[in-house]
Amino acid sequence: MTAFDAQAPRLIALDWGTSSLRAMLLGPGGTVLDRRSAALGIMQVGAGGFSAAFAEVAGEWRAAAPDLPAVAAGMVGSAQGWREAPYVIGSAGPEELANGLVAVESGSGAPVHIVPGVAVDGPPPDVMRGEETQILGALAIRPELAENARLVLPGTHSKWASLSGGRIAGFRTFMTGELFAVLRAHSILGRPARDARASPGGDDAAFALGVATARECRDGIAPLLFSARSRVLRAGLPAASSLDYLSGLLIGDEVRCAAPEGPETLAMIGDAALCNRYRQALALFGRPDIPSIEHATETGLWRIACAAGLAQEEATP
Amino acid sequence: MTAFDAQAPRLIALDWGTSSLRAMLLGPGGTVLDRRSAALGIMQVGAGGFSAAFAEVAGEWRAAAPDLPAVAAGMVGSAQGWREAPYVIGSAGPEELANGLVAVESGSGAPVHIVPGVAVDGPPPDVMRGEETQILGALAIRPELAENARLVLPGTHSKWASLSGGRIAGFRTFMTGELFAVLRAHSILGRPARDARASPGGDDAAFALGVATARECRDGIAPLLFSARSRVLRAGLPAASSLDYLSGLLIGDEVRCAAPEGPETLAMIGDAALCNRYRQALALFGRPDIPSIEHATETGLWRIACAAGLAQEEATP
Repeated sequence: MTAFDAQAPRLIALDWGTSSLRAMLLGPGGTVLDRRSAALGIMQVGAGGFSAAFAEVAGEWRAAAPDLPAVAAGMVGSAQGWREAPYVIGSAGPEELANGLVAVESGSGAPVHIVPGVAVDGPPPDVMRGEETQILGALAIRPELAENARLVLPGTHSKWASLSGGRIAGFRTFMTGELFAVLRAHSILGRPARDARASPGGDDAAFALGVATARECRDGIAPLLFSARSRVLRAGLPAASSLDYLSGLLIGDEVRCAAPEGPETLAMIGDAALCNRYRQALALFGRPDIPSIEHATETGLWRIACAAGLAQEEATP
Repeated sequence: MTAFDAQAPRLIALDWGTSSLRAMLLGPGGTVLDRRSAALGIMQVGAGGFSAAFAEVAGEWRAAAPDLPAVAAGMVGSAQGWREAPYVIGSAGPEELANGLVAVESGSGAPVHIVPGVAVDGPPPDVMRGEETQILGALAIRPELAENARLVLPGTHSKWASLSGGRIAGFRTFMTGELFAVLRAHSILGRPARDARASPGGDDAAFALGVATARECRDGIAPLLFSARSRVLRAGLPAASSLDYLSGLLIGDEVRCAAPEGPETLAMIGDAALCNRYRQALALFGRPDIPSIEHATETGLWRIACAAGLAQEEATP
């Protein structure tokens, strides 16, 4: 293997979150040569287990090339992770993230470089870990997002990031996904659907009603949540559709707060089904057909590795 | 025993909710002669068990006076209760609630009369069961609340009721208590306090910071919830105080939505510790020293029984 081998591995890229570890073997230009994944998130692994978890997904690649550099993004850099990578404060681009990489001995060859998260110091403050890497990846894939653009990253803790000068200029977190999950599993709002053994996703009209209800309530969701129950009791909302309505309320309120009606270009990164829900909601706010960007994570890890000199940008020899 | 015996029982008054059953033996004028309670809420009892549950708390009283009337308010009148008592729709006073009583055979003497809930048909609609009785009780205790007043009933599902003409003119539900409980027990926002084995209630400054943060955010809580985590990570909020902050956010947002700055007289009904929290929050909105009203439930049950002719208003013979 030489540096000019077009199929030679160049980087081990790790997306290491709370509940899972995804590893990608990247070749020249950041092309994906191989993938592994395991339920080895930081909650499963715990202190002392990170080297073994890394070896489990990347050991074969490292055995073939012990000096292959590795870069990891996500909660692996939190205080509960492998090694804490202090936040980059405020505006962040590839250079700040590359400069903030924290190297940890991997136990098998070269160190693993952990990408820092990004913090903004409000008040109130806000933080991200992992999304900064996806955002930089999206900027590499869609360079026109460098100015006057916003990226929506729907999820457990949704992020809305403003982009300027090819950098993350600011962001806000909405706990929409986690709020939905705990209300579904543990509150009275989830009971009708639990009793009906119904899953959300089947009733677009109920979802749209939730979005429209949230769009009209400038006070936010506090006075609206109970309507996911009262509409079942009093307004003919089918029990089996009550989670679609609740999902619409929560996503609709997030979109309303984020005020997507402005002139910025919008794009999304995330799970396809969830992005479809956000796309439906954004359309009801007059922003139809917002595209999703694929492969943002591996592209972002590659880009940060290049900015740090751990890999070279050249696509082909 | 005669109708003129000053100590003679006149009514069995039942406050029968989701998780508990409280029974009171009322004498002339609605004075409380005796009390019983049991963890026999409708969730514990289930279909078929209501007569036995009633006998467990009130059997002794009924054995001494089989014809003693009984009135019950709360979730016992829901579709999951003993017998469904259809909602009174819209504006509600003692007469509508008395006319809406639904009698169910008790299995031991006279029937039990179940108080209907109240519904308003939005959109979105809203419902209450049990609070209507407390509100009528409060109106009997504090007649000056009959006009231009609002009652706050903090709890799992807080209610804010507008009063006019001595009647419930409208109301809104906020799921503040349940939202706090599920976020505390099941979300990442509860984790720092869970790890620190800390309970809310100890840090008034953290609570006040939460209230002030919510008061300034006109969009509601969706963009604020995550700050209960980010302030711990980045702004020095002690992990052990994070639930006080979260409680302040949720109660503060409820109060902000309810817009208590108007000219109406305000009063509260509810658990003393929780009313204290709301009193602190209301003071931060310029409404200090809002009083609580005690004994609203038994007074309301007595008043409805009198309106229905099941008891007589006379205080003494």
